[in-house]
Amino acid sequence: MNEFELIAKLTHALPANESVVTGAGDDCAVLDLGVADKLILFKTDAVVEGFHFTRETPPEKIGRKALARCLSDIAAMAGTPTAALVTVGLPENFDGEFVAEIYDGMNVLAREQGVAMVGGETTTNPERLLISISMLGTVPRGNQILRSGAKTGDAIFVTGELGGSLAGHHLDFAPRLAEARWLTEHFAVHALLDLSDGLAGDLRHILNASKVGAEILKSAVPVSRAAKIRAKQSSTAKPAFAAALTDGEDFELLFTLDSKDAVKLLDAWKKEFPKVKLSCIGRIVPGDGILIRDKTGAHRLSARGFVHFTQDRLPEQSFNTKITL
Amino acid sequence: MNEFELIAKLTHALPANESVVTGAGDDCAVLDLGVADKLILFKTDAVVEGFHFTRETPPEKIGRKALARCLSDIAAMAGTPTAALVTVGLPENFDGEFVAEIYDGMNVLAREQGVAMVGGETTTNPERLLISISMLGTVPRGNQILRSGAKTGDAIFVTGELGGSLAGHHLDFAPRLAEARWLTEHFAVHALLDLSDGLAGDLRHILNASKVGAEILKSAVPVSRAAKIRAKQSSTAKPAFAAALTDGEDFELLFTLDSKDAVKLLDAWKKEFPKVKLSCIGRIVPGDGILIRDKTGAHRLSARGFVHFTQDRLPEQSFNTKITL
Repeated sequence: MNEFELIAKLTHALPANESVVTGAGDDCAVLDLGVADKLILFKTDAVVEGFHFTRETPPEKIGRKALARCLSDIAAMAGTPTAALVTVGLPENFDGEFVAEIYDGMNVLAREQGVAMVGGETTTNPERLLISISMLGTVPRGNQILRSGAKTGDAIFVTGELGGSLAGHHLDFAPRLAEARWLTEHFAVHALLDLSDGLAGDLRHILNASKVGAEILKSAVPVSRAAKIRAKQSSTAKPAFAAALTDGEDFELLFTLDSKDAVKLLDAWKKEFPKVKLSCIGRIVPGDGILIRDKTGAHRLSARGFVHFTQDRLPEQSFNTKITL
Repeated sequence: MNEFELIAKLTHALPANESVVTGAGDDCAVLDLGVADKLILFKTDAVVEGFHFTRETPPEKIGRKALARCLSDIAAMAGTPTAALVTVGLPENFDGEFVAEIYDGMNVLAREQGVAMVGGETTTNPERLLISISMLGTVPRGNQILRSGAKTGDAIFVTGELGGSLAGHHLDFAPRLAEARWLTEHFAVHALLDLSDGLAGDLRHILNASKVGAEILKSAVPVSRAAKIRAKQSSTAKPAFAAALTDGEDFELLFTLDSKDAVKLLDAWKKEFPKVKLSCIGRIVPGDGILIRDKTGAHRLSARGFVHFTQDRLPEQSFNTKITL
């Protein structure tokens, strides 16, 4: 059984009830718990030593990253985070001060974003540190943006720059909460997610959910300076464009909206978020899959983004060894 | 830093916001998200291979237990579970069929209790299987019962029988959801929790939160038959009464209410739940700590219930190596 068969098997006929608006398969579950004007967002996300951080990562940064990843999923639904629980799997002979510093990193970000930290637990995970964050948020009824709404003719946008995660971005990215809320308040966004598995893989999530294809203009993809430097300096690093397409943990927003709104959006964005780049990288087309257009023509992208459950244990190669149901 | 200092450090000055009714320190966090007549319960709980189950435990039972533990915490707030997310940390070379059977065990229990399974993720945890459940529930406003409400003169009750977890109860217990709801609908329960760390340890949680003491009548404590058999058959097993006091994972309800309601409760309970034992085991007294009364008099209990973060890796000795914030 490969991972895709496993996902299909696990998500087939999950128990549901009348509270479920959107179950497994999007950035967050969406629930109707009877709040007059809001729906509830529910999400969990884990980071594991050796895969999402190393022994050498400063504990505050581990804590910050664990929380920020989950906040990015709330952003991907255009929601507002409310409260979080923390599960820490601790190796034996843990250092209490180290755990306290993990919490410090989380708490600083939680305060910035108005998130209440309402408990959790520590448990034993002898061989490696594991942190799982469970998050509740809200979104105004009707404002939640799924992956399934992209339409032929839509313009495709991405925030920030891509490919810089391994150079350090994965530890200090800012979840795009304010940007996503502003977007959905001012524009009719059709599909939205946060880039966690790499542009190629995550764009496919939108395409598959929306039953459409995409054409990406190679020169329009905002490749991060860090990825370019890495590609030049290291013989084993991916070419920078490949890193921008396939490296995980960019945690930028990827979204589509009607191409007639594209110019208006770019103008308004520049005024609202002058420090955050916004790039129109292509358009939604009929069919399926991804075409990359460069000077030589349009090329079908066969790469999958990221191969999960890699046996390769090098941290840099094995980010994002997880599947989301 | 010991575990108690760690808890104090981690839970000191956690970020809060206006949604928090009860933060870290009770069985669930309680949130006000603006539902007219209800509060939201939020809880996370993890089980780890080698501590809460072994390689030999049937996968359906692992899944069932993981979910049941979290449901027991919802019961401890007299709530109703709504939706759950599942995080599975998978060893390398995992067997997809095994994971699917874990889900089968969860899904059967979820359907029984009307819980929607709304997603989650699998991630890599190379050395051992870890399952963390994140749970949302609701409770009618004002009906949530905390640990802090016990009053001098209260009668102390416990459901079921205690001490049988190691003999198998930890894999097939029934979370006392219906019982807890019925209790709070019909009686003014002062304090309530579910027994996860053993009667001695968990009763202390009520006593410390309520700033009172307890006197327990030894002969009234319902010691499970399985604990008695174990104590007889194994020279290394605890005496049965010690198992009933200190073994974790009973997942029965422990609660207090005004002693004037005690007889009425016992009568009504017998009619409502003829198959579930209910025992009045003692009373709340001024002061602190636990007195055990037997034929020879009253003895102060010094044992702590359960010592966390044990270095002893025998599964039978190391259940519940976790602390709840």
